[in-house]
Amino acid sequence: MPEQSLDKKTYKQRSEELKEALLDAQFELKRQQGGPVLILISGNDFAGKAELIYTFYGWLDTRRLNTRAFNLPAGIEKRMPRLWRYWRTLPPSGELGFYLGSWYHQPLMRFSRGQISEAHFQSAMEEIVRFETLLTREGVSIVKLWLHLTGPDTSKKPSADTFKQTVAMREWGDFSAADYDQVRDAAQRMEHLTSTEAAPWIRVQSSDENYRDIRVAEIILDTLQQRLEADTQESQPPVSDWPGATHRVLQELDYSARLSKDDYKEQLETWQARLRELVRHPRFNRHSLLLVFEGSDAAGKGGTIRRITQCLDPRHLRVHGTAAPTAEEATQPYLLRFWKRIPAPGNVVIFDRSHYGRVLVERVEGFCPATRWQQAYQEINDFEQQLHQSGTLVIKFWLAITEEEQLRRFKAREKSSVKRYKLTDEDWRNREKWPAYEQAVNDMVAHTSTRHAPWYLLSSEDKRHARVEALKIVCEQLEQRLERGKKQ
Amino acid sequence: MPEQSLDKKTYKQRSEELKEALLDAQFELKRQQGGPVLILISGNDFAGKAELIYTFYGWLDTRRLNTRAFNLPAGIEKRMPRLWRYWRTLPPSGELGFYLGSWYHQPLMRFSRGQISEAHFQSAMEEIVRFETLLTREGVSIVKLWLHLTGPDTSKKPSADTFKQTVAMREWGDFSAADYDQVRDAAQRMEHLTSTEAAPWIRVQSSDENYRDIRVAEIILDTLQQRLEADTQESQPPVSDWPGATHRVLQELDYSARLSKDDYKEQLETWQARLRELVRHPRFNRHSLLLVFEGSDAAGKGGTIRRITQCLDPRHLRVHGTAAPTAEEATQPYLLRFWKRIPAPGNVVIFDRSHYGRVLVERVEGFCPATRWQQAYQEINDFEQQLHQSGTLVIKFWLAITEEEQLRRFKAREKSSVKRYKLTDEDWRNREKWPAYEQAVNDMVAHTSTRHAPWYLLSSEDKRHARVEALKIVCEQLEQRLERGKKQ
Repeated sequence: MPEQSLDKKTYKQRSEELKEALLDAQFELKRQQGGPVLILISGNDFAGKAELIYTFYGWLDTRRLNTRAFNLPAGIEKRMPRLWRYWRTLPPSGELGFYLGSWYHQPLMRFSRGQISEAHFQSAMEEIVRFETLLTREGVSIVKLWLHLTGPDTSKKPSADTFKQTVAMREWGDFSAADYDQVRDAAQRMEHLTSTEAAPWIRVQSSDENYRDIRVAEIILDTLQQRLEADTQESQPPVSDWPGATHRVLQELDYSARLSKDDYKEQLETWQARLRELVRHPRFNRHSLLLVFEGSDAAGKGGTIRRITQCLDPRHLRVHGTAAPTAEEATQPYLLRFWKRIPAPGNVVIFDRSHYGRVLVERVEGFCPATRWQQAYQEINDFEQQLHQSGTLVIKFWLAITEEEQLRRFKAREKSSVKRYKLTDEDWRNREKWPAYEQAVNDMVAHTSTRHAPWYLLSSEDKRHARVEALKIVCEQLEQRLERGKKQ
Repeated sequence: MPEQSLDKKTYKQRSEELKEALLDAQFELKRQQGGPVLILISGNDFAGKAELIYTFYGWLDTRRLNTRAFNLPAGIEKRMPRLWRYWRTLPPSGELGFYLGSWYHQPLMRFSRGQISEAHFQSAMEEIVRFETLLTREGVSIVKLWLHLTGPDTSKKPSADTFKQTVAMREWGDFSAADYDQVRDAAQRMEHLTSTEAAPWIRVQSSDENYRDIRVAEIILDTLQQRLEADTQESQPPVSDWPGATHRVLQELDYSARLSKDDYKEQLETWQARLRELVRHPRFNRHSLLLVFEGSDAAGKGGTIRRITQCLDPRHLRVHGTAAPTAEEATQPYLLRFWKRIPAPGNVVIFDRSHYGRVLVERVEGFCPATRWQQAYQEINDFEQQLHQSGTLVIKFWLAITEEEQLRRFKAREKSSVKRYKLTDEDWRNREKWPAYEQAVNDMVAHTSTRHAPWYLLSSEDKRHARVEALKIVCEQLEQRLERGKKQ
């Protein structure tokens, strides 16, 4: 490939045009408030990754510009799922994010140095593809640039000045130019494994700075303009055929279980004492606990949760109620707010309603396109799988009651001043959609009851029964996990 | 004082009534979306601070409950202003926050152990009073409880069970009951110094658990109800007399300074190179830089900022544009969003418009009561003083242009496609308020130009002049600071 370059005059003229167009597009992006545009800058050493970003800090509106750079995971990052640090630092809607050392950096470097196996590298790349796919489906744009130096250039001695800057900006102190071949091979594998339609890798010849800057500006502008056009179009995909689960778990549940007041009191105390002990176990500090509570309105989620929180140290506990997304949250990928709330080691987080809203209320009420809730099952499984891998025990409960029992409880709520506020017109409307919700729950259980994060369906027709059962399951699962931790 | 206690029956009956009333009030608090209610739980060892919170986790709606516990500052906390960690973890609007180990904990413990002087303790207490005053003025409620054990009780041996729990919950491992007298004396000083009208300390006899729980529930309920009543009242305080600064700094500025194109190019390069060097200085890692840019519309803030960002490592830089607060931000103390954006050590943060909005646009447009912007000068000085103390260099620029020059620029913007988006109807409206803004700027400079964070007024009638001046001031101030750091 011949080296591509640009003379100074052409550069100046073209850069003025691009600057103007970029500022316009950036302004429009903010106005439309769609997902952020992520620009990943990878490439050879000395290809000018940092210098490129300097250029754009002169060309773009810096108030809508975010630069993220990730080094090796440190501190708490080591003990959280790999992708957590990227989720939690996702730029705000309508803004640009430049990434130096993105999620590719660590696996690429480790693989090129022979520190991880081919299989390990491949599975890391697959995880990334699923991550990027989710983001792009949710309106985030991803531009992946590989700044490329052709053969002869890489051997050119960097000038003192370039060198100084590169040294200041580089992330891996002990990485020398000699590793060029290994990195090239690893990068080719990476490119092969992760160039998807929605987020392909784009190589940019970077031997000539002028050419490089203009080329990247054109790519970014092109991405922005495509996005802005797409955003203004109506793009509701057609509802595809959805078979629906045939296993009707909810209808087949036994709603007859009851617990007497005395038995309840005794068993509640036993299991609460057990839970108090378990979370104080020193090994729990290497784990964490995420409890997901879903269920029909008035099924008794709050009361069950309270019986559990009473046993926990409030300093290491957080109960998150999930309401409809705020205006800001609605512009972000739906999993983001849940990623931001996952427990740190030694902590317990309880979701009172959860990320399953996507396949429950959002599905039934038509708040998201059919393709999106259908794809969500796998995305949610990925999320929970990553939690599992980093030591979080995920336990999911569906508290089930019959339609008749719900009616009784609604009527009782109308009369009680404590619970009056819990009942809204919407609750009554939801009752009319009972069969649709039932199907959604059956589908949810069929698709997301995984080995690492199974669903527990509990009859809450008798609240005492559900409370004791939930506590018991939490204790048993936690005990098993801590036991397994011992053997490791 | 006789010991206060409650029999089981009274406790049960009263707790049922309180639970109901508390849930109602908590719900109403969320609905009104006012500032959060902070409940600080301090007191003697074995007085049941943690147990008390357990009780409320059974009584309240846990989804609107936050428990914060702070140990000794660790990691980055040590290098940030003392109050930063409390600011950044302030509970959301309309929610409750229980504090175990609040901002009082560390100074109290250190003073009671003789690790800090009386004067140091006193100044820490004063800082806290200003902090709490600001919060309460901004709609946050603060309840400060001291759980009190009367003389004989403190000598009572804790039962094995209580002891176990207290040990699990206590924050200071090596603190023994023998220190009781020292803590009592220090607590009395604390109470004396920090019992303000808006946030007084309340002592609660805690020898009897039932009495303690009911008493605290009553206090919390009382606070919530007072708050809810106050929120529904119209409470616009009368506009007080405001003298206004007589020193008309803006009118007396010299607007004639000009820089030729050649001089500009040369000086720009010189100072940019200097700044690049300075921020790479190893000692800069112990400091950080906060640049505040304010100025009339079209004064050239963006262009000046860009000339500075070009010299900085984008990974350690963040430019924050300040727009009107979002719906969520509007319910929070106005300084909160700026506290959340202060630079970490080794970092540069630039505010393109800033926390001075309170005494500029909010004052002129009447977006906040007169008392609040008048009080804000001192609050802002406190904020910047704390930044200074923790190693942040705060430099504030007002870019000034004449009314005529602004008109010329507005007209030019209308014709330019790059800058078109910068001009709104509001900009034209603002011009009509020129004298009011001028007075606001003069007042701002008079009240907030402190020794540690002075204002620099730059004529931007000639943009080149302003850009070079700003760069030069940043370099000179930074150099001085790094030099001083050397001597330490």
